This record gives sequence, C-alpha cells and structure tokens, in this order.
Amino acid sequence: MGNDRGLTPQAEDFSAWYNEIVQQAELAGHTQVRGCMVIRPYGYRIWELIQAGLDARFKATGHENAYFPLFLPKSALDREAEHVEGFAPETAIVTHAGRAELEEPLVVRPTSEAIIWPIVRDWIQSYRDLPVLLNQWANVVRWELRTRPFLRTTEFLWQEGHTAHASEAEAEEETRRMLGVYRSFMQHEMAMPVLTGRKTESEKFAGAVRTYATEALMKDNRALQAGTSHNLGQNFARAFDVRYQTEDGEHEFVWSTSWGVSTRLIGALIMAHGDDTGLVLPPRLAPYQCVIVPIWRDEDQRTEVLEAGEQARTALAAAGVRVRLDGREGMNPGAKYYEWERRGVPLRLEVGPRDVAAGQLVSVRRFTPEGGDRKRPIPAGELGTAVPALLQSMQEELLEGARARREANTHRGVTSLETFRAIVEGPGGFVFTGWCGDEACENRVKEETKATIRVLPDEEFRSAQPADRCLCGAPSVGEVVRARAY
Amino acid sequence: MGNDRGLTPQAEDFSAWYNEIVQQAELAGHTQVRGCMVIRPYGYRIWELIQAGLDARFKATGHENAYFPLFLPKSALDREAEHVEGFAPETAIVTHAGRAELEEPLVVRPTSEAIIWPIVRDWIQSYRDLPVLLNQWANVVRWELRTRPFLRTTEFLWQEGHTAHASEAEAEEETRRMLGVYRSFMQHEMAMPVLTGRKTESEKFAGAVRTYATEALMKDNRALQAGTSHNLGQNFARAFDVRYQTEDGEHEFVWSTSWGVSTRLIGALIMAHGDDTGLVLPPRLAPYQCVIVPIWRDEDQRTEVLEAGEQARTALAAAGVRVRLDGREGMNPGAKYYEWERRGVPLRLEVGPRDVAAGQLVSVRRFTPEGGDRKRPIPAGELGTAVPALLQSMQEELLEGARARREANTHRGVTSLETFRAIVEGPGGFVFTGWCGDEACENRVKEETKATIRVLPDEEFRSAQPADRCLCGAPSVGEVVRARAY
Repeated sequence: MGNDRGLTPQAEDFSAWYNEIVQQAELAGHTQVRGCMVIRPYGYRIWELIQAGLDARFKATGHENAYFPLFLPKSALDREAEHVEGFAPETAIVTHAGRAELEEPLVVRPTSEAIIWPIVRDWIQSYRDLPVLLNQWANVVRWELRTRPFLRTTEFLWQEGHTAHASEAEAEEETRRMLGVYRSFMQHEMAMPVLTGRKTESEKFAGAVRTYATEALMKDNRALQAGTSHNLGQNFARAFDVRYQTEDGEHEFVWSTSWGVSTRLIGALIMAHGDDTGLVLPPRLAPYQCVIVPIWRDEDQRTEVLEAGEQARTALAAAGVRVRLDGREGMNPGAKYYEWERRGVPLRLEVGPRDVAAGQLVSVRRFTPEGGDRKRPIPAGELGTAVPALLQSMQEELLEGARARREANTHRGVTSLETFRAIVEGPGGFVFTGWCGDEACENRVKEETKATIRVLPDEEFRSAQPADRCLCGAPSVGEVVRARAY
Repeated sequence: MGNDRGLTPQAEDFSAWYNEIVQQAELAGHTQVRGCMVIRPYGYRIWELIQAGLDARFKATGHENAYFPLFLPKSALDREAEHVEGFAPETAIVTHAGRAELEEPLVVRPTSEAIIWPIVRDWIQSYRDLPVLLNQWANVVRWELRTRPFLRTTEFLWQEGHTAHASEAEAEEETRRMLGVYRSFMQHEMAMPVLTGRKTESEKFAGAVRTYATEALMKDNRALQAGTSHNLGQNFARAFDVRYQTEDGEHEFVWSTSWGVSTRLIGALIMAHGDDTGLVLPPRLAPYQCVIVPIWRDEDQRTEVLEAGEQARTALAAAGVRVRLDGREGMNPGAKYYEWERRGVPLRLEVGPRDVAAGQLVSVRRFTPEGGDRKRPIPAGELGTAVPALLQSMQEELLEGARARREANTHRGVTSLETFRAIVEGPGGFVFTGWCGDEACENRVKEETKATIRVLPDEEFRSAQPADRCLCGAPSVGEVVRARAY
C-alpha cells in the first residue's frame, strides 16, 4: 500500500520516499532561506522527546547546561589551525550590525570549541576546578552546498558537550563514556542498534586527536553517522591557553573533549524504521503513542462513542500514555487511520457502538512482528495497564527487528575489491573488511566505490575471524567497517 | 553584612550591586563579543526552571512548539513598514557565507513575525485550520548600544508565541490570555507581583495594534517590563498575504498575535528579591532549594556527619526537593554558608555531631518574614515532609513580602508635575497619575523626568479615585502608571 496514496515506495526511490514522508507527516518544510528548514510541531515534539531523554542522561553523568554566544570574532576561529581549515569554508559571516560595518567580522558558530575555551579558561585555576563538565543546547550554522531536511541543513539544532580534565586518561574515559551514553540512548529510546568505533584520521573531527562515532543502518542499507565523541587532547587548551595548577603546583594544559548529536537524529529515526505506509515511531519518542478513533453513523452513536473515547483518553493519560482522541468531524474513520499510520503513531484504539456495548476498544498496532496479532480487543477497564505494557513490548520488538535487519545486512570477512563493489553497488549494508592503514588506499576505495570507512569497530563488534588482508591485497593492520553513507 | 565581603550595598550603588552579584553568584559573564554574555550553569539552571514552568503553561493552553530559521532575507523584513522601522537599526546582517558574498544579505532574527508568517501561511487553508497556536524557544539578536547582563544583551534567549485566529475578538482574547499566563507565572513561580495593562501608542511593539505588558517593581524602585503580549491585528497577515477561507467561502486575512518573555526574567528575579547578602531565589526556581552543610572537626566526626548528610540528601531527593550535599574538603562551614547565601539558596541544613546524636538537622532560612524564626531544628525522620512544607511557605512569604513592598512604594492620585518629579527623583516606585492622552505631553514628561508611562493599568489595578487631570493640567482621559524603568 502507500504508493496508491501518494507515497513513493522505498524500493522504487528511497530518496523520494524520504522527502515525501518529511512533508506528509508534517515533520519539516522548506523556507525562503536556502538550506534552512522549519521544524513543524510534530517534528519538533520528537526533538523535545529526544532532548528530554538525552538531557536526563547528561545530568545523570554529572554535566551541567550553559549557554555561550552565537558569534565568535573571526580572529578567534583562526587560533586552532586544523580546526579553522575544517570549518572556514562552511561559515556564515556577519559584517554589518546596527547599521554600521563591524570593525571585526563575526562568525556564526559552526561549533563552539573556539567560543567556549577562551571563556571557560577563566573559570579554571587549579585541579580542584576540574573536571569541567558542560553541555549546550543550541543552533549552529554550516553553509552546506547540498542540503536535505534533518540530514544536512544550513542551520541545525544540536547539543554540544564540552569538558576539561586533568589527565589524558580522564579525557579519553569521558570521550568513551559519552559515546556509550549515545549508544544506549539510540538503542533504548530510538530502538536503533548502532555500531561504535573510531574514525580514521581522514574522517575525524577537525582539531581532534581521536573521534569516535555511532553508526546506524538505514532501510536503504546506507550507513548514517548518528553521533560523535571527540578526544581533543590538548589542542584547544594550547590554542586558547587553558591551564590549571596541579597538586604539585605545576601549570599544565587541560585535556578536553567534545561530543554532539543533532536534529539529524530525526532523519535517522525516519530512515531506520519507516516503511511504505509512512513513518514508524518507537513508542518512547512518539508525540502520540496512542490515538483513539471513535466510529459512529448517527448522532446517538456519536455521543456514545465520544464518551467512551474520552473515558479511555483520561484513563490512558493518567497512566502516563501520550494519547490523543481524534474526534474530528467531517472525516471518516478510514481517513483518520490513514493519517495516523502515515504519521507513525504506534497504536490506534478504535471504538464503535458494538465495542461500547462490549466494554472494550480494539487496538491496532502500527507494526507487528512476524506472526504477531495486529488487532486485539482490550477491555476498557484494563487500558491503563494493557496499553503501557503493549507499548513497552512494541518498543522492544522494534529494536529486535532493527537488529535482525542489521545482522542480515552485515557482510564479514570480505577481502576482494570485486566482492566489495558487488555488495555496495548491490544490496548495500555494513561490510567488514581488512585495511592496510594507508590513507591513500582509503581514498582510492572511496573514489571507486563511494563507500567509506565508517569506523574501526570496537572490540565487541569485530569479527571472530577478521580478514587478514586489505581490499588492496596488502596485509591488514585492523578490521574496518565500510559502507556507503549519508 | 555583605559589604565587608566585597558586595556593594544596594543603597550605595544598586547598579554596582547588580553587576557584582551576577558575577559572584556565577550567573553570567562577559565574552569576547561586545554585548554577548555567557550564561553560566547556575544561571542557566534558573532559565531551565523558568522554561519548564512556562512551557507547561503554554502546552496546557493548547500551544505547540516549533522551530523556524535563524535568518530571514532582508527583503522579507521590508514587507511590514512599521515593523521594519522598529527593528532595522538593531539588526545584524550576514553578507558572506561559504567563502562567497551572498546575493541577498540575511538578517539574523530580532524577532520572528517576518519569518513565521511567510511559512505558516501555507499551512492555513480554511477556518478549520484555525487557530494556529505556536511557540518557539530561540535565540534572537538585537544590536543594542548599551548592554547589561540579562537586562539588555545583543543576543538573548526567549520564547516567542505566534498565533493566528479567525476573528479580531479571538486574537484579542488570546493576547489577554497569554498576558494572564505570564502574570500567573510571575506571581506563583517567581514570587513577583506584577501590574498589567496596555502600552501607549509610542511604547507599543512595532507592528502591533495593541501591546499589553506585565510590569514589576525592582528593589531600587524602578520598574521592569517583564513580558509583553501583542495583538497584531491583520498587519502581518496583510504584509505576508496570510488568508483563510471562511465558512461562507470568503477569503479573509487572519488575525495574529505574538507574545514573549526572555532571559531578562533572570535579571528581574535578581533585582526583585536580592539583598545586601546576595541573591534571594524563590524556592520554585532555585537550582538548589536546599543545601546540606556537614560540620566536623576530626575524621570520626566527618564520617558520621557525612553519613547523616547523605541520608538527609537521599530523603529530600526522594521527596522531590532539589538538594545538594556540600561535602567539600578544605573549606570551613562558614565559607560554605557564605557562598550559598550569596547564591540565594532558600534553605540550609546544618548537621554537626551533636545534631547526629539528637537525630536532627538545623534548618536556616535565607529569608525570614518579620518576627519569624530563622533557625529551626528538624528531626531527621521528618525532613521529607517538613522541608517541602517549609519551602512552600517561604515561596508564599516571598510573594507576600514583595507585594507589601510594592504597595508601600506605590503612589496614587498624583496630579502635579512637581510632586511627581519629587517622587521619581526621590524614593521612586509606581506613580499613578492622570494623562491627557497626548503623545507630545507623554514625551515631554519622559524627557524632563526620565519616567515613562509603563501602562494604562487594567481595571483591577486602577485607583478608586483616579486623578482627573494630567500632569500638564489638562483633563485626564484615563489613569496611567508612570515610573523610571529598566
């Protein structure tokens, strides 16, 4: 279904499907400013739920939120050479303000390392002031040439963690801890299994010593980098002279980290779970977890089913379910089913006159595991326990399904470039291969196949018997995961 | 006290006191970019609590959050002439991006009416799509010449509500409803009583038909405009061609509103309640409502009091109290008392060896009404009920105190310019006078006394016997509230 109702099937044109579902589910829209999107209320509500889930985890790991300026003087960006080269081509510059030309142009933040450290350095005197554990929720601007809603936009919303530590080991530990926080959030809230690992030198963040990432597999079998965590070593501390006094009275540069996820996660959600009917949302991040659709033919029935619907709504809200009663007039139930399925609501509760008589509502799931029942009546008195339990098991089933999909589309031990090319140009997916460690070879494979090294995978993801040769035939220095990616 | 510890007394120099407390309580700091502040974690936590309180009220009144772009094309701002004149002198302009000059410069939003309506117009077809009830949490930029942390900064954080309605009456009702939401929030969460009323033509928002405001009285007896709510009539609908089809099939322009409060509210909190000891925070908005300070002399005592402190912390956290156990070493209890008093924590709980033996903690309030007990022992087993109750009564007492202060500093029925001048140049406060309705007279009084008409007060605030003449001697057309203001 779906295609007859104006949604291109995924298999036909995944990219068209994506653009259509973003519009039709009212997640986002285009604006007058090239590459800037508007995030519509339904899309923004998903972002609020993502924010709440992440923010609680950041606070639980000791981080505090703060807010730093939108602008930085152009000269400040020039302090960290590698960082500058990474971001200069993408920046937006304010040259005039208050009807006059500025003495020094201001850069709209593409990220905030060069804003934060010149400020926070004054908060740090001794080892007692460390660690500094900050996070910021903010908008940033990167002047991208090709943009797509959520995936790559000129302005986007994100969080950026920035921390300072007294030792290299502590900075590394923090970098890894936050990668773990992202991974756990993506699995448990987004129902999206991710691979974790380290980026190659050519793919790492400009200014970082080491970049780690979480990589998810989309429904078209392309990879998507969903979050990154950077160990910045002493690079920014040196550039901005951020020192602390050690217990021994020495003055040392701090060790810093940064880590971020963005509204790109909404794009990941769409492409990790969506199908030809439309969006599929994990219950934990669904603006409405459950929509009640009353069914009536005449005025008497209308009163009766709306009353039953309202009772159900009250019971579910009291049980902590995000629920909506869709009592719109002049719209038949089928049209409502269609709309909420397209918008990915996990559970629909139908209530008609016969259901009222039987003291029940009929639940219909947006997605069902193989062999499961899509429809099931629930006694009205049991809604407050049955629906949360059903949503919880749907959350788990969605993750299990995504995990099975990923396993089915993971290829291990690939050693020949030909086989590799056949996979990435054919079914796609994650391809585990060897790597000689040479950046020139990495670039050559990328140019020839449009597939990149996503990560040097963390131990638990590595193959029991990894390939001992790179795709170029040279001995492998370690296993890598390659894929075409967003 | 206070002045011997480096805080200028309010009576000596209120402005110096303000700047010092912003720094010393670690609320905000200066940055490299003129007029842009950094909001430090303690200040930002207050903002998060303000956001949570307001956001719940916005959602309860049917509003949804969304996110619109940071930039608007310069030509879009030019569409609403009055609005443009209001904001053009204050805007920051992006002329270059991605290493090239832009074809059309972009304005960094000073407010979003001219961004939102060209987008939302496509979401509205018929009366069924109305009302549109939106809110946005965002940063905005206004190039102010003279800036002060929280009160007036080049970049600030705020929320901006934007709504569209099918009739003038509905738009007016919404404008007043949100003014009421602000007033209720300010009273019940900020413990800050406010006057409400309408702005004069010369003080209203550029592009509005009517602007309403909440006005609070600060400790130096100057007024502060804390929130505004604008009935925009059809001005923006006309400028951006936002129409809807009525039930009768006609095409009409919508009626719109906008309303906002900003990080300025943190400045209001500071100046409404602070004293010579430092910040005074209402319990509902305090990052820590309660700080536990353990007191020890030797290692045995330390173990014992820290354990009691930790038990108290757990009990209070379980009771929903935002609590911190200050177990820092190398810092005596007095220094901790001093720091948390300066930072406005409502309640301190001291626990020493004798308290442990007696199974109690000693509560010390940050502020106490006339004749009340500042110190009181609380049995350890009763913390979970006693502390929330104490915080609740402190919240109410703070509001009562502020209300009494305002009444004591409100002057009614003033008719002569001389008396008026003596008040505003002397004690200050809200001065209720008559007004002839003439803008030239309004401006003359403003120039001569630096006091402005704050509002044409809502009925419940008006004097039983209002002055029948303006300060100029001409007959009054209605009572006004005048004051020197921030």
